[in-house]
Amino acid sequence: MNGSSSSAPLPGAPGLLDRVLAAIESDRARHEAILEELLRFPSVSTDPVYEPDIARCAARVLELCRQSGMTAELVKTKRHPVVFARTPRLPGKPTVLFYGHYDVQPPDPLDLWESPPFTPTRRGENVYARGASDDKGQFLAHLLALAAWTKTAGAPPVNVIWVIEGEEEIGSPNLAAFLSDHAPELRAEAAVLSDTAQLAPGVPTICYGLRGLAYLELTVRGAKHDLHSGFYGGTVPNAAVMLSKALASLHDAEGRVLIPGFYDRVRPLSETERAAWAALPFDEAALADYTGGTLFGEPGYSTLERRWARPTCDINGFWGGYRGPGAKTVLPAEANAKISCRLVPDQDPDEIVTALENHLRANLPSTVSVTVRRHAGSPPALVDPAGPIVEAGKRALKTGFGAEPVLTREGGTIPVVGMFERILGIPTLMIGLGRPDDNLHAPNEKFHLGDFHAGIRTSAALLAELASSLGRS
Amino acid sequence: MNGSSSSAPLPGAPGLLDRVLAAIESDRARHEAILEELLRFPSVSTDPVYEPDIARCAARVLELCRQSGMTAELVKTKRHPVVFARTPRLPGKPTVLFYGHYDVQPPDPLDLWESPPFTPTRRGENVYARGASDDKGQFLAHLLALAAWTKTAGAPPVNVIWVIEGEEEIGSPNLAAFLSDHAPELRAEAAVLSDTAQLAPGVPTICYGLRGLAYLELTVRGAKHDLHSGFYGGTVPNAAVMLSKALASLHDAEGRVLIPGFYDRVRPLSETERAAWAALPFDEAALADYTGGTLFGEPGYSTLERRWARPTCDINGFWGGYRGPGAKTVLPAEANAKISCRLVPDQDPDEIVTALENHLRANLPSTVSVTVRRHAGSPPALVDPAGPIVEAGKRALKTGFGAEPVLTREGGTIPVVGMFERILGIPTLMIGLGRPDDNLHAPNEKFHLGDFHAGIRTSAALLAELASSLGRS
Repeated sequence: MNGSSSSAPLPGAPGLLDRVLAAIESDRARHEAILEELLRFPSVSTDPVYEPDIARCAARVLELCRQSGMTAELVKTKRHPVVFARTPRLPGKPTVLFYGHYDVQPPDPLDLWESPPFTPTRRGENVYARGASDDKGQFLAHLLALAAWTKTAGAPPVNVIWVIEGEEEIGSPNLAAFLSDHAPELRAEAAVLSDTAQLAPGVPTICYGLRGLAYLELTVRGAKHDLHSGFYGGTVPNAAVMLSKALASLHDAEGRVLIPGFYDRVRPLSETERAAWAALPFDEAALADYTGGTLFGEPGYSTLERRWARPTCDINGFWGGYRGPGAKTVLPAEANAKISCRLVPDQDPDEIVTALENHLRANLPSTVSVTVRRHAGSPPALVDPAGPIVEAGKRALKTGFGAEPVLTREGGTIPVVGMFERILGIPTLMIGLGRPDDNLHAPNEKFHLGDFHAGIRTSAALLAELASSLGRS
Repeated sequence: MNGSSSSAPLPGAPGLLDRVLAAIESDRARHEAILEELLRFPSVSTDPVYEPDIARCAARVLELCRQSGMTAELVKTKRHPVVFARTPRLPGKPTVLFYGHYDVQPPDPLDLWESPPFTPTRRGENVYARGASDDKGQFLAHLLALAAWTKTAGAPPVNVIWVIEGEEEIGSPNLAAFLSDHAPELRAEAAVLSDTAQLAPGVPTICYGLRGLAYLELTVRGAKHDLHSGFYGGTVPNAAVMLSKALASLHDAEGRVLIPGFYDRVRPLSETERAAWAALPFDEAALADYTGGTLFGEPGYSTLERRWARPTCDINGFWGGYRGPGAKTVLPAEANAKISCRLVPDQDPDEIVTALENHLRANLPSTVSVTVRRHAGSPPALVDPAGPIVEAGKRALKTGFGAEPVLTREGGTIPVVGMFERILGIPTLMIGLGRPDDNLHAPNEKFHLGDFHAGIRTSAALLAELASSLGRS
């Protein structure tokens, strides 16, 4: 364990952070028990069948906020509630807004899990469960650091606000309204979240950019019901054949997206950024080994550039016709696909989802009918990598992990970062506590318990660092 | 009801067929009850979960054979048993082999059925159930005609053999072996089956040609497990994207199949056949209305020509990635498709399935792995439309339905017809008792009860007609 290694003077009595860190160290077993309990809730936000579990999970998070020294309430939305909490407001102290989400991705395909997704299971130094890393383990680390400050020092060195939502995995459709409605109560100097990842195992990482998202689902109908492929084959449009042709029109053979106008607003990478990324300790061989496939993508870009600074268009799912065992000779009347694009600055989600829909429709014949449903989109985000909060984050990570942090961007989407910028006017510090092979959104999601404890230490240090750097600014 | 209207003298005591037809007429209610009972067995051959139902259905069919005046046994195969039955062999009489199948297609999609698929339900003049027309209602009509002959006259006017298999809907993988093993016991002058359809409702129809089948299933793997589309999108191959491109390569935009060599062995249509088909009472508007889609197919051919004499390639099902409600941002590691081709003379199923597999592999990049599983194929079939058994069939249909029959080909595949030709050396008379809108292989399959009773009458007359025409030849 590392003590405070900050070079700047920290507020509070001398050695206070060290006492907080010592308290954290003595509570390891209890912290792990709280994490495992939280992972037992199947808080899947996208599927209505899990609504009671979402509610029970929200109630437990509310209780954890109260136990950390905050007043807390559940704020209803159109779907899943927001846990909204704050420490007693002390004048003269800067305020930091922490964000997390208690909802998780669906666990399927279930048969690929080595242990049940909602029965947290330890193997080696990891705990396996859906939501372990994304995002229960990560936000809990920050919450437990606050609790340690409250327990040890009576209060943290900054005012703390917490927003823990239950709709991140469905694109945070009601969060913007929540933030707008509560903007006066949410006034803060900076936001902090841990929903990104370490660049490589054991490399503490601050992320200063995210990709955005555009998502739609479409249904193609040929005949009005499934038909015998012998009697009707060759005489009516096959919905699966027609949809396949439209899906195939999305990319060229080398992986470039063919949607007209798709790349028009993409900000080119600077040579400086390309050089900085090329110097990062990124293990491409480990990525290839983890994914198990040959790496493949748009020509002319490195793997990190493809992931962080180039947009994509992906089929997330498709289905139609017979999928059971054996041979059924049916002409599918209906075929479906879920398709999403990851966006980079300065692409606009509404513009791209419209371009995607228009392109698909243009590549489907008039012999079929097409229905399109749009899911929530999100703009890409970039924050200043040289600002004071990133500097505070770097020092805190060095304290928590005992290693020098790196600066990265990420390929995923965290809609709240754009919202904090637009609605609250504050920058966001993104600290990646999880690892790149944590199996987010996939079977066997895990979180490394060493990272969990280092994350708690980091957050304890961060509260002191932010008190110092935001207090000075 | 029509009496015997044959112009040729029929064997047996004068008026014997009329007495059989009268007995059939008085048994209408009992015949319908037997049909409905048979339709309650969910005898789905492709899915192992239905194996006990297949066994119970086979046992019931065995009993019905015995009740019709035959000795009968169940012959085991590698999968589902064949019901094998015969009347006591009378020397000097010709022998006719009847074929049916007691297995049915899977009932899904279940939510599109208006009544449960295995609860036979009457609406109007129809009985709705999976297997009603394909093939339980149709083979049962023939079996009940035999029973009526046995009851009324002690025996039918020809020796009768029955083969009722349980694997037609999975491509009859074990029937050829059964026929070869029992060839001496199966010696006959002709075969009869009703597994085709009327050209139009109320138009009695003899079919003299069928399409064949080639079928395969393929799995494409990109990464070794599903991945987060944000972290990995753009850097690894998406199995669904890659499969879509391969599927899209199967056809041009107008519906022509692009598999190299696909059309090489296709026998061109003669102008005589095209003219005869153009004169048939085929209602294209009714077809468009029934299917609910715009008619679509290979340029340069009429709808009947596309269906009867042109080969096809269809996606019967495809799937990969997330298919649940809402938006999941996953890169599918695996994508699957079931693909089949309908074949016409002189295409060869082995040759075509190989060409299909080679074409798909050639259109998938080396960044993904491909697994192909072939299902049972079947050659196309053609029988002599001017032979004596077709003439006997035409007279019997006129007796049973009271209308002049037409001669057609069909787009479906009945593997046994090719087997009878190759293994037993006998031609097959295909009499369509069902209607073109019976929803075969689709939700809400039905059989018209008027057709059922007309079919029993037809088969009773056919036994007399075949005794006459085969006895003379």
